[in-house]
Amino acid sequence: MKTLIIVAHPDYKQSSTQQFLQHQVPQDSEVTWHLLDDINDLDVAVEQQLLRDHQRIIFQFPLYWYSVPVSLRQWQDAVLTRGFAYGTNAVLAGKEFGIVVSLGEPINEYQAGGREYYTISELLKPLQAMANKLQWRYLKPLVISQFDYMTDAQRLDLVVNYQQYVTIDDTSFAGQQQWFIKQLSARINTENDPVKIAQLTSILTQIQDNYDELTELRWTVDLIRDEEE
Amino acid sequence: MKTLIIVAHPDYKQSSTQQFLQHQVPQDSEVTWHLLDDINDLDVAVEQQLLRDHQRIIFQFPLYWYSVPVSLRQWQDAVLTRGFAYGTNAVLAGKEFGIVVSLGEPINEYQAGGREYYTISELLKPLQAMANKLQWRYLKPLVISQFDYMTDAQRLDLVVNYQQYVTIDDTSFAGQQQWFIKQLSARINTENDPVKIAQLTSILTQIQDNYDELTELRWTVDLIRDEEE
Repeated sequence: MKTLIIVAHPDYKQSSTQQFLQHQVPQDSEVTWHLLDDINDLDVAVEQQLLRDHQRIIFQFPLYWYSVPVSLRQWQDAVLTRGFAYGTNAVLAGKEFGIVVSLGEPINEYQAGGREYYTISELLKPLQAMANKLQWRYLKPLVISQFDYMTDAQRLDLVVNYQQYVTIDDTSFAGQQQWFIKQLSARINTENDPVKIAQLTSILTQIQDNYDELTELRWTVDLIRDEEE
Repeated sequence: MKTLIIVAHPDYKQSSTQQFLQHQVPQDSEVTWHLLDDINDLDVAVEQQLLRDHQRIIFQFPLYWYSVPVSLRQWQDAVLTRGFAYGTNAVLAGKEFGIVVSLGEPINEYQAGGREYYTISELLKPLQAMANKLQWRYLKPLVISQFDYMTDAQRLDLVVNYQQYVTIDDTSFAGQQQWFIKQLSARINTENDPVKIAQLTSILTQIQDNYDELTELRWTVDLIRDEEE
């Protein structure tokens, strides 16, 4: 699956969040990092071809005035034209649509009674409506709240979540476990130190065993539930 | 009460809706028509002074990608700065905030199951969140759906609704009746033809009588309800 990450940030070079995320993007041909604010004159044909060439489209941006930054709003008007993106002969139907949104305020302020009062689900409704119009499948957004205050452990979690968000086909528990196993196997194959290989292989075996055990438990639980009904 | 109408439309001169609305704006010093797309370099100090000088702020725009046009998104980022519009020393708290939004699709498509699937209340949530942040009172938006297909009677309704939206203090039934009486009285005062004056005065008397009767009925109904409880 090919993923297009459309990044919009008016002050990209100064954004620690965006710089951090860019370094976490898997270095393979399946993921395209596409920074809008570097483009002076948007070439609509180029942008439309990028959309055609990828199956998962991700908007990545900081939430400004509860909306997308100006460069991304301009992109929408210019690129998502009738006849291409929607209407008769729409060619983009069936794609997946993800959102990686960063917040300056704590996430728990985004609820009724909180300072920001509305939830992220409510505030991103215009993008959900866009996905509806384009017949794109709306994925659960990846929300990054106050990156600068994150601990190292939280950032490590973010790395895993982000890499999965931009590469993983199957976001079920099973899919996520398979993703870990695949990543670890690839890591072992490029390692030369025999001690490290032994350590990594031991971790891999542990993950694989845990996964098998959890799969079996899930199967037993399902069986019991079936009998109860 | 002074009203600032901030108009955003990338193709203003070609918009029949915007041209129509501009002709309906009452010609007095209380209402300022402020077209963003005519401005080449936004002067932040001028914009901020305009906000200070008016009590009701209205965003008037066509809904593009379920959001505001690019010029208005730019305006938000440039003008609504921390320390001026929000944060400590925010000077705009307590203003009224209205939205005049025009749609290319029929309004009844904006609901669950409809082609646009989400309601206008849901789609305008980012602006409601902005009003919350600025401590502005959010007024019920004035929605104009498919202006080009409106009948003359519908357009006449729109004129009344629009003029009330931008000028009326009190949007209760009583307030609206008083607005009609005031408009008609002003019309009579500028009329020279004695026949027309007689006709208009007759209509004015009728409206005043109806209003008095309705007020009395409402009073009686309230009294009955109070006794029942």
